[in-house]
Amino acid sequence: MNIPEQETLLINFLTDAELAEWKTYFSSRLPDLRLAAWDDVSVDPLSVRYVLVWEPEAGQLARFPHLRVILSEAAGVDHLLSDSTLPPDIPITRMVTPETAARMADYVTMASYMLVRRLPEIIQAQRHKRWAAHLAGGLASETAVGILGLGRLGTAVAQRLLANGFTVNGWSRSAKTVPGVVGFYGAKGLSPFLTRSQIMVNLLPDTAETRGIINDDFLAQLPDGAGIINVGRGHQLQHDALLRALDRGRVSGAVLDVFPQEPLPEDDPLWCHPGVIVTSHVASLISHQSKAQHALTIIQADRAGQALPLVFNRTLGY
Amino acid sequence: MNIPEQETLLINFLTDAELAEWKTYFSSRLPDLRLAAWDDVSVDPLSVRYVLVWEPEAGQLARFPHLRVILSEAAGVDHLLSDSTLPPDIPITRMVTPETAARMADYVTMASYMLVRRLPEIIQAQRHKRWAAHLAGGLASETAVGILGLGRLGTAVAQRLLANGFTVNGWSRSAKTVPGVVGFYGAKGLSPFLTRSQIMVNLLPDTAETRGIINDDFLAQLPDGAGIINVGRGHQLQHDALLRALDRGRVSGAVLDVFPQEPLPEDDPLWCHPGVIVTSHVASLISHQSKAQHALTIIQADRAGQALPLVFNRTLGY
Repeated sequence: MNIPEQETLLINFLTDAELAEWKTYFSSRLPDLRLAAWDDVSVDPLSVRYVLVWEPEAGQLARFPHLRVILSEAAGVDHLLSDSTLPPDIPITRMVTPETAARMADYVTMASYMLVRRLPEIIQAQRHKRWAAHLAGGLASETAVGILGLGRLGTAVAQRLLANGFTVNGWSRSAKTVPGVVGFYGAKGLSPFLTRSQIMVNLLPDTAETRGIINDDFLAQLPDGAGIINVGRGHQLQHDALLRALDRGRVSGAVLDVFPQEPLPEDDPLWCHPGVIVTSHVASLISHQSKAQHALTIIQADRAGQALPLVFNRTLGY
Repeated sequence: MNIPEQETLLINFLTDAELAEWKTYFSSRLPDLRLAAWDDVSVDPLSVRYVLVWEPEAGQLARFPHLRVILSEAAGVDHLLSDSTLPPDIPITRMVTPETAARMADYVTMASYMLVRRLPEIIQAQRHKRWAAHLAGGLASETAVGILGLGRLGTAVAQRLLANGFTVNGWSRSAKTVPGVVGFYGAKGLSPFLTRSQIMVNLLPDTAETRGIINDDFLAQLPDGAGIINVGRGHQLQHDALLRALDRGRVSGAVLDVFPQEPLPEDDPLWCHPGVIVTSHVASLISHQSKAQHALTIIQADRAGQALPLVFNRTLGY
C-alpha cells in the first residue's frame, strides 16, 4: 500500500475563512502538515493522520486506514461514541484548554453570584417595572457551593469560587483532594454533599451512570431554596424534576447552559420559567486560537512519540 | 437645664418588630442606653444623644439640644445635608460596615461578569426563545475594569476583581495606592483612565463636583462597546447620555442600582431598554445585625472619648 508522504489533518466544523486562518497558524509551526476541510474531495484518505471533529457522521472515521489520533472538538466525546464503526484502538483526545477552564470558571462564578443575589427574580421584577428593594439576597462569604465532578474544569471552578469567599464542597466518584475544598466521594458521599450545597454545580462527565442522575430524590436532598447550575450534560438533569422543585420552591433558581436537545426546542417550558436563566451552550466556548493551539500540541506530541495529553479513557468513560 | 440621666438613641427606619430586635441586641451590650422609634412621644428630646436616620424630615435634627452624633443609615450623607437647620458642629458618621463592602464587592463582581458575558443580550434572547450560541462574550482575564472612586468600597471592589483575574484601574480625586490597581487621579488622570475602562464602575461620593459627571463627553472616551455599572449615586450618571450611547452601540450594556428618583418611575425608559439591567438599590443593602453592630461601635467610641470612625468631612464633602 502506498502511503502518501504529506500528512493531513481533516477538520469538520470550520468555515472557509476560518480554515484559512487555521492554515496560516499551522503553516509556520508544522509546515509539512496539510489542513483540509472534511468534504475536500482532493484529499487522499490514505494521507489522513489526524481528524479534529464535532459530531462526525457515523462510519466516516473508519474511512482512514492510517488515522493516528481522533481529536474531539469538545471536552466530552459522547458525540463520537455512538458510531459503531469507530476504530477501537485509535486514541481520542478531549479538548480542554486553559481557555476552556478559564471560561468555565468565569461562567460558574457569574452564575453563582446571580443565584446568591436572586437575579432571576430581579429580572422578572424589571420586566414588570416593579421596584424590588427587598431582593438583596445573600453573601458569597455565607454561601456554600457544591461542585459535582472534580476534574480539570471542576477544580478550576472550585479555585475561582474560593477566591471569591464562597465555601466550596466537591463530590467525585473516587476520592480527590483539591486544596480548600471539602471533598466527598462515592455513593455514600453523595447525600452529605447534597445537604450542604446551597448552590449545586453539575460538571459530571457523560457516562452511563450520570444520565438522569439529578432527579427528584437528588433535588429533595438539597437545602431549601437551593440554586442549580448545569454546565455538564443536558440529560444528566431531569428537567421535569427540576420544574417540580422550582414550582414547589425547593429550588429557588437555575442557570442552565446545556440541554438534552440543542438548540432548546421553542416549546420547552424552561425558556419561560421565571426561575430559570437559559444560556446557549456558551459556558466554555473557546476561541479558534485556543483550539488550534490545542490541536498543535496533540499533533506535536504524537509525532514526537510522547504520551498524548487528555486522552479519553474508554474503560472509565471520561 | 436639667439633663435626663438616661441617654436615648432614636432610630427612624425600623418596624416595631425590628426595633424589638435592636433593643435585645443593645440591652446586653449597652444596658443603660434607651432605644426608641423616631415618633415615640414618650421620649424627652433632652435625653436624645444619638440619632440613626435615613432621610429625616428637615428641621427635626435641630430639636435635640444634647445630640452628640448623627449616624447616617447609609454610606452617603446627602440625605441629611439639604436640611438648613442641620446642627453644624455635630459629627455625622457614615455607615460603611464590613458587610457593606462585602456586598458591594459581590454585586460589582457579578455585574462585571454579566457585562463580560453579554447577559443583557442573553436575557433578551431567552425572552424571545432564541438559541444564541454566538453570545460567548469575553474573558475576565482579558478585561480591564475601571473603578471611579477608590474609597473603602472602591478598594474592596478592586481587590475582589483582582482575585478574579480582571485588570483593574482606579481613578480618585487625589493620588491613592491600592496594591495591584493602576491608579489615575485628578482632572488630568480622567481621560487616560476612561480610555482603558472596558467596564466602568461608578463609586464616586456624592459631591457638587460629581453630579452629572458621567455625560456624553465622558462616555465618548470609553472604549467601543464598554459596559457601565452604577453603584454610586443616581444623579451622577446622565441617563439621557447613557441611552444615546447604548443606542449607538458605544456602550454595550449597563447594570444600574441607583437612580435620581427612587423607586425608578414606571415610565422611565431604563426599565425596558434591552441593554440595561435594573436592580432596586440593593447592591450594598446590609442586615440589621450589621447596622446594629456599626451603631454600637460608634456609640461606644463616643462614650469612651475616642475618635469616631467614618466621620463625614463637611469640607471635602465625603
